Amino acid sequence: MWQGRFDKDTEKGVLHFTASLPFDLRLALCDLKGSEAHVEMLAETGVITSSDADLIIKGLSRVRREVENEEFPYDLDFEDIHMNIEKRLTEIIGTVGGKLHTGRSRNDQVALDMHLYMKEEIDAIDRCLKKLQETLLNLAEKYEGVIIPGYTHLQRAQPVLLSHHLLAYFWMLKRDRERLAGAYRRADIMPLGAGALAGTGFPIDREKVAGKLGFKEIYENSIDAVSDRDYLVEFMAFASTLMMHLSRFCEELVLWSSFEYGFIELDDAYTTGSSMMPQKKNPDLAELIRGKSGRVYGSLVSLLAMMKGLPLAYNKDMQEDKEGVFDTVDNLKALLPLFAGMLETMEINRGRLQEAVDDDYLCATDLADHLVKEGGTFREAHHVVGEMIAYCKKEGVRLKQLSAEARSSFHPVLGEEISLLLDPQEVCRARKSRGGTAPSAVRNQLKKAQAQLGDSSG
Amino acid sequence: MWQGRFDKDTEKGVLHFTASLPFDLRLALCDLKGSEAHVEMLAETGVITSSDADLIIKGLSRVRREVENEEFPYDLDFEDIHMNIEKRLTEIIGTVGGKLHTGRSRNDQVALDMHLYMKEEIDAIDRCLKKLQETLLNLAEKYEGVIIPGYTHLQRAQPVLLSHHLLAYFWMLKRDRERLAGAYRRADIMPLGAGALAGTGFPIDREKVAGKLGFKEIYENSIDAVSDRDYLVEFMAFASTLMMHLSRFCEELVLWSSFEYGFIELDDAYTTGSSMMPQKKNPDLAELIRGKSGRVYGSLVSLLAMMKGLPLAYNKDMQEDKEGVFDTVDNLKALLPLFAGMLETMEINRGRLQEAVDDDYLCATDLADHLVKEGGTFREAHHVVGEMIAYCKKEGVRLKQLSAEARSSFHPVLGEEISLLLDPQEVCRARKSRGGTAPSAVRNQLKKAQAQLGDSSG
Amino acid sequence: MWQGRFDKDTEKGVLHFTASLPFDLRLALCDLKGSEAHVEMLAETGVITSSDADLIIKGLSRVRREVENEEFPYDLDFEDIHMNIEKRLTEIIGTVGGKLHTGRSRNDQVALDMHLYMKEEIDAIDRCLKKLQETLLNLAEKYEGVIIPGYTHLQRAQPVLLSHHLLAYFWMLKRDRERLAGAYRRADIMPLGAGALAGTGFPIDREKVAGKLGFKEIYENSIDAVSDRDYLVEFMAFASTLMMHLSRFCEELVLWSSFEYGFIELDDAYTTGSSMMPQKKNPDLAELIRGKSGRVYGSLVSLLAMMKGLPLAYNKDMQEDKEGVFDTVDNLKALLPLFAGMLETMEINRGRLQEAVDDDYLCATDLADHLVKEGGTFREAHHVVGEMIAYCKKEGVRLKQLSAEARSSFHPVLGEEISLLLDPQEVCRARKSRGGTAPSAVRNQLKKAQAQLGDSSG
Amino acid sequence: MWQGRFDKDTEKGVLHFTASLPFDLRLALCDLKGSEAHVEMLAETGVITSSDADLIIKGLSRVRREVENEEFPYDLDFEDIHMNIEKRLTEIIGTVGGKLHTGRSRNDQVALDMHLYMKEEIDAIDRCLKKLQETLLNLAEKYEGVIIPGYTHLQRAQPVLLSHHLLAYFWMLKRDRERLAGAYRRADIMPLGAGALAGTGFPIDREKVAGKLGFKEIYENSIDAVSDRDYLVEFMAFASTLMMHLSRFCEELVLWSSFEYGFIELDDAYTTGSSMMPQKKNPDLAELIRGKSGRVYGSLVSLLAMMKGLPLAYNKDMQEDKEGVFDTVDNLKALLPLFAGMLETMEINRGRLQEAVDDDYLCATDLADHLVKEGGTFREAHHVVGEMIAYCKKEGVRLKQLSAEARSSFHPVLGEEISLLLDPQEVCRARKSRGGTAPSAVRNQLKKAQAQLGDSSG
Repeated sequence: MWQGRFDKDTEKGVLHFTASLPFDLRLALCDLKGSEAHVEMLAETGVITSSDADLIIKGLSRVRREVENEEFPYDLDFEDIHMNIEKRLTEIIGTVGGKLHTGRSRNDQVALDMHLYMKEEIDAIDRCLKKLQETLLNLAEKYEGVIIPGYTHLQRAQPVLLSHHLLAYFWMLKRDRERLAGAYRRADIMPLGAGALAGTGFPIDREKVAGKLGFKEIYENSIDAVSDRDYLVEFMAFASTLMMHLSRFCEELVLWSSFEYGFIELDDAYTTGSSMMPQKKNPDLAELIRGKSGRVYGSLVSLLAMMKGLPLAYNKDMQEDKEGVFDTVDNLKALLPLFAGMLETMEINRGRLQEAVDDDYLCATDLADHLVKEGGTFREAHHVVGEMIAYCKKEGVRLKQLSAEARSSFHPVLGEEISLLLDPQEVCRARKSRGGTAPSAVRNQLKKAQAQLGDSSG
Repeated sequence: MWQGRFDKDTEKGVLHFTASLPFDLRLALCDLKGSEAHVEMLAETGVITSSDADLIIKGLSRVRREVENEEFPYDLDFEDIHMNIEKRLTEIIGTVGGKLHTGRSRNDQVALDMHLYMKEEIDAIDRCLKKLQETLLNLAEKYEGVIIPGYTHLQRAQPVLLSHHLLAYFWMLKRDRERLAGAYRRADIMPLGAGALAGTGFPIDREKVAGKLGFKEIYENSIDAVSDRDYLVEFMAFASTLMMHLSRFCEELVLWSSFEYGFIELDDAYTTGSSMMPQKKNPDLAELIRGKSGRVYGSLVSLLAMMKGLPLAYNKDMQEDKEGVFDTVDNLKALLPLFAGMLETMEINRGRLQEAVDDDYLCATDLADHLVKEGGTFREAHHVVGEMIAYCKKEGVRLKQLSAEARSSFHPVLGEEISLLLDPQEVCRARKSRGGTAPSAVRNQLKKAQAQLGDSSG
Repeated sequence: MWQGRFDKDTEKGVLHFTASLPFDLRLALCDLKGSEAHVEMLAETGVITSSDADLIIKGLSRVRREVENEEFPYDLDFEDIHMNIEKRLTEIIGTVGGKLHTGRSRNDQVALDMHLYMKEEIDAIDRCLKKLQETLLNLAEKYEGVIIPGYTHLQRAQPVLLSHHLLAYFWMLKRDRERLAGAYRRADIMPLGAGALAGTGFPIDREKVAGKLGFKEIYENSIDAVSDRDYLVEFMAFASTLMMHLSRFCEELVLWSSFEYGFIELDDAYTTGSSMMPQKKNPDLAELIRGKSGRVYGSLVSLLAMMKGLPLAYNKDMQEDKEGVFDTVDNLKALLPLFAGMLETMEINRGRLQEAVDDDYLCATDLADHLVKEGGTFREAHHVVGEMIAYCKKEGVRLKQLSAEARSSFHPVLGEEISLLLDPQEVCRARKSRGGTAPSAVRNQLKKAQAQLGDSSG
Repeated sequence: MWQGRFDKDTEKGVLHFTASLPFDLRLALCDLKGSEAHVEMLAETGVITSSDADLIIKGLSRVRREVENEEFPYDLDFEDIHMNIEKRLTEIIGTVGGKLHTGRSRNDQVALDMHLYMKEEIDAIDRCLKKLQETLLNLAEKYEGVIIPGYTHLQRAQPVLLSHHLLAYFWMLKRDRERLAGAYRRADIMPLGAGALAGTGFPIDREKVAGKLGFKEIYENSIDAVSDRDYLVEFMAFASTLMMHLSRFCEELVLWSSFEYGFIELDDAYTTGSSMMPQKKNPDLAELIRGKSGRVYGSLVSLLAMMKGLPLAYNKDMQEDKEGVFDTVDNLKALLPLFAGMLETMEINRGRLQEAVDDDYLCATDLADHLVKEGGTFREAHHVVGEMIAYCKKEGVRLKQLSAEARSSFHPVLGEEISLLLDPQEVCRARKSRGGTAPSAVRNQLKKAQAQLGDSSG
């Protein structure tokens, strides 16, 4: 392709090591789509003749069929998918195939392919995220009224509705989708026409190409167009944040399905056994998704480190921009539906949850709040209740087992009837301000979430 | 503060190791602002009396003055800034100070402080970015018409306008600012009222607080409100991408101010010398900014790794969310103006640039394009020109030094007059489609950039 | 210091931004130590006179006293600790102080300081690690015979001795210390004499300096000496691995001290409470150490990213090598003793552990093994026991509650007496091959560990 | 394999997502090797009969042939290579194949495979590194006497021998190999016999297995044996440091082969052209290797992040330990020989180098040193020479073009003959202390390097 000024061929080992074909062949259809738009524009602007363009379009169609039918003869000696297609085109239609490359360079061509690819895949991932949000809303409705212990520091803190807990992830995903939309906006800019870096001397029409391909914007600077990989960094940062969120959820599923918690049982179809221990039922899927967060973080780091300190415009290092992104796309598209399936099929253990929230230490804050309402400062109230709990711990009893007399020794107000204050139902019900865990507040929240999801589907 | 149920004091070493005061004291003013809004709301909703509220507000004002005058008696035995302020408030106004904490927890309080802080700092950083964009536009105007070699693979590729090259960074910064705006939107959500994790039983009014503090949204889920750190990840991902961009620019400044390039000379005020070598003038600032990219990447990784796999809601690990962010904020606010100053004061070496673009190999693409226009395919043309260049390299001559005869031995068309094709001015001029490096196209680009910058200032 | 060829002073903002004094002042004593050795050598080799050397040594002693007594007048206008000391020396003893810099550059000087610093700190950290190993051995002895459930996938797997579990960390720390020793060896190479990058024209004697300062090796290449930061990467990789190990241990302490597990209770002195919830006792220290792993990982990434693609020899970017290392050193020295203290003071809850290991599903593997010993293949045996457990789960009974008849319906051999096979004590006892969890094997392991620790103390 | 206690089959999507076969099939031969040793030991210790063992060994041989001839019928429904082999074995020899798994679990089996694999690959990589070191020594000899400008801050600093510069990388690689040897030592520990986590109740003999497989040590703790991945982190840290070193070297090759430097020309066989620009000859290989540093860093981060906070012993997340390591192994084995080939075939441009070192500002330090030897302090001397250079810059002359009179106006001593001081040959020659760039010192260094390399080959 570029042997004019060279005396020797490239070393075979170098050729294969520097080739991107093994991974960029997945861009074949995007490449063809971009080439079709380019060649149409070249004909429309008179850069090449219509008959040449027709011939090329026909040739490209045939190539497309070969790709789709997995009959395309990939050849590693032609280093990338672009060269492979161009070479195949020329085999099919002869030297006129060489005109396809008029007014463009591989630099803007590969940039175009990647932008097209990302737009498609971001859409696909967004659909997966939306479905997962729907799953969460369905579960929040299904489990209405179920109370679980809420935790801070993995210590039982206060009772909360299971629906409330699940909805927390709804909002994280909402923000993740907003970030993904940002990545889409930065992907939705058309680089073709930037040439190698400076534009082209041919009278091309970039708006036409952008229109054909459905791009909203056009890179206003040719050097930027071929040098920019920041939309990929942005996608990877979105993906890392999403995986961070999922890793937290998975951690909880692992905990909740442990013997010690016993809050849920994952479906047999979403777990696996042990080759050695017959009793085991392992939450493999949840663990593996948690573990995949590391992989996605790593790919983000790879990209950032690779781009660091590279002068403009294109450098070969930048070929390393793809594999981590592809791997992330594949993993997200695989794991998001599986994650939703795992949630939909899990069973909750209402008995264990009931037992768990009967632990009335969970209501200690409300006892303290009660003292405040009766006139104390929160700090004093906190201290009084803390001492009462220390006493209970030592005696091995629960708060509700203390006699009125014993209670009043800590504070006169506590000598009164306090059983409602120690009822997790009541405790939840009291937290009714916006965003709180009261059933009424959670119902409102659910409605907002449903409305939000409806809006985001347009 | 929480000793009721404990038999012993915390080990001093533990207390100091787990204390966040050494770094969160910078949140003091945000904390006071949040407390004022909270206490006003408590009074307005009748949770506390107006007279208590007035007393607390007065106390908080005094604390604010002490902080502003650097007279505040920070005490590491009170682990964080919130406890320090509450304790000081109580010293000043007595036990009524304890009422300030009614209906909130440190979990939502620290979340609020951090959101307030980020909103302020994001604004400040955005202003710095806008100024840097202005600097770039000014330079693009100042250097109108100056041509430099454009590079790919650090090999000379094609002539481009220096203004065009500088504007490439304008658009990167534009996208960086868009991402920063995204981080702002996710920071602009009010967490207060989430309590420890479940909301509060006091009849608080979160909309009121959000209104007083200028928040656009409110967290719809209390667990999410205290568990969310993704807006910080988003900020760090923005910062990493920005630093990646700057590291590329710095690399170029280092190259351009080297002896071998000699394209620019950085101002004495923005460089430093060597303690050993009297002749040295080092681009320290550019190098250090390039190096700081590593630091910012590292802080992004820290945050992501720390958050991985944490169950909801708050865990102490999350205290580690701040230092990397603070460090990044400080570095960006320091380096962005210095970077602008370095650009504004640098001198370009027009003689060296002229010499550099006289290298007519830069025009090889245009020779090939010319052959295409005369009827060849691009691949043939590329080969012909490649051979001619190989010949020149061997003979040690430039293209324009070849006789018409010698040229026509490669291709008859090249026997014609080709000097215009080898003139970098002409080569640039030809790339006049949108986003290209032609002076006319760059002028249009500059106008769009100016308009864009005007729009973004509102 | 280097203003000869400059027309203007450095911009104040640049000076302060590029200054390393704020963090490298901790190298003051190392710098003085290095300077003393250097000046002695200069006198011994006749590069400077003995009387000049004496004067300088005296001056350096006075500077040392000032540093030690915190009376040294640090001045940010002199960018680093080296310049600060040289300037102060010259104030004290006059221009002869300038001779100290003969035959060295800041490049090899700062490299020397950092090597000296790392050698000291690696020693200190190794001592902390050894103490933590001792703590583990003490606990392994203290808890001899206590059985806990061993986990895979956070599902109960098989009974193991608590001592065995604790000793697993002993061996991780052993490998960590080996890696730390590797980092020490690479730190123990003397760079002084490399000058700015090429060596020096003065007839210095590097062996002498290395001898005085206790270095085992000398950099054999001056360019390498001033460009090398790989010993710092190696230290950070050690630290990251150590923190990874500790994060796993901390995760377990957090789990074990949760209500659901209840295996241990951390001492009041090593936990903290909640400002809102009076009942809380949070394992803050364990969580924070777990979280610190992210910070250390981040500093490793910073260093690697910063060094990527830097040409030889020194570049200003490399000034960024220090802060992450210093932060890691400080954190390790603080957290290792606290971690040991937390372990030493924790209490185990024998009742809960006994209950936990009474869960006889833990013994399922041994049932299957028994069938194998009676002639089956492991795969068949695994299947039989799996079915029996599925049956128990459905019936809500434990294995030992099944009648002989019920058992024999799964496999005739199981109709025999199997109670010993379901006894966790017996199950542990059976795993007596090397490295297994049998009390006898653990005692052997403990002896090896003690011997190993003795060997490593030399 | 483990369906006894399950009611349903695993969801196909889950099965395929959690399967490791697609990447762990490369462990097939290691797995077979481990199984052979295991089964031999089982027979020798009487756990299974000799005739069963013989049958299994024969079956394994057949499997081995199938794997070697690429005829093995991999089946994704059996999630990993271990299950695939066991299933195939059973097809071949019947149910007795099930006895192979006696006394082991997949947890210790996969750990064994990975240790065996790493030992082999580390050896292979070490051989590549040694060859690269040899290449460097050959080049250092070949280019004896060639001087290049040495750089700090990418500014010309002092003349150095090209051989000296190349040898700097020799020592980096030496340290890299030491770190690799450390990773080998931690890989050289045998995990088999650890069972799922607790050891096994069968009377196995781990020393026997270790002996057969050539392991130096045995894990002393079964929980540690199946939980440990730190030897992989150590390998990845080695690889990251190596790639950091190579990225620096590549940066220099890219610079040196640029038009502006022109110090070297890479061979046509190790470079590539441009599809658009006929004149281009791009150092693709050097760039790509530089870029690969990002990928390797990312895999290190993935591993560390994945392992963070995992409780003992095995968790499914840990399946993610392999792909990054495999990718790194493949890349290192591919790029190291190519890198050596690129160095061996490059040509240096002696003319350009001569010109470059004629830049007599490179000798400024030696002028200053001369003034010191004549009695000044270094600081004064530095200042004087700095002013003289500022003067030359303004006048556009070189130091040697100044008249004696002009020179003496800066300092009387400079009025004397100084041409030797400005001769790069002389300047190099003067730096003759150990590790310096004098030809004599470099010859000594080369001898040490050769001796060192000889020692390391044993």
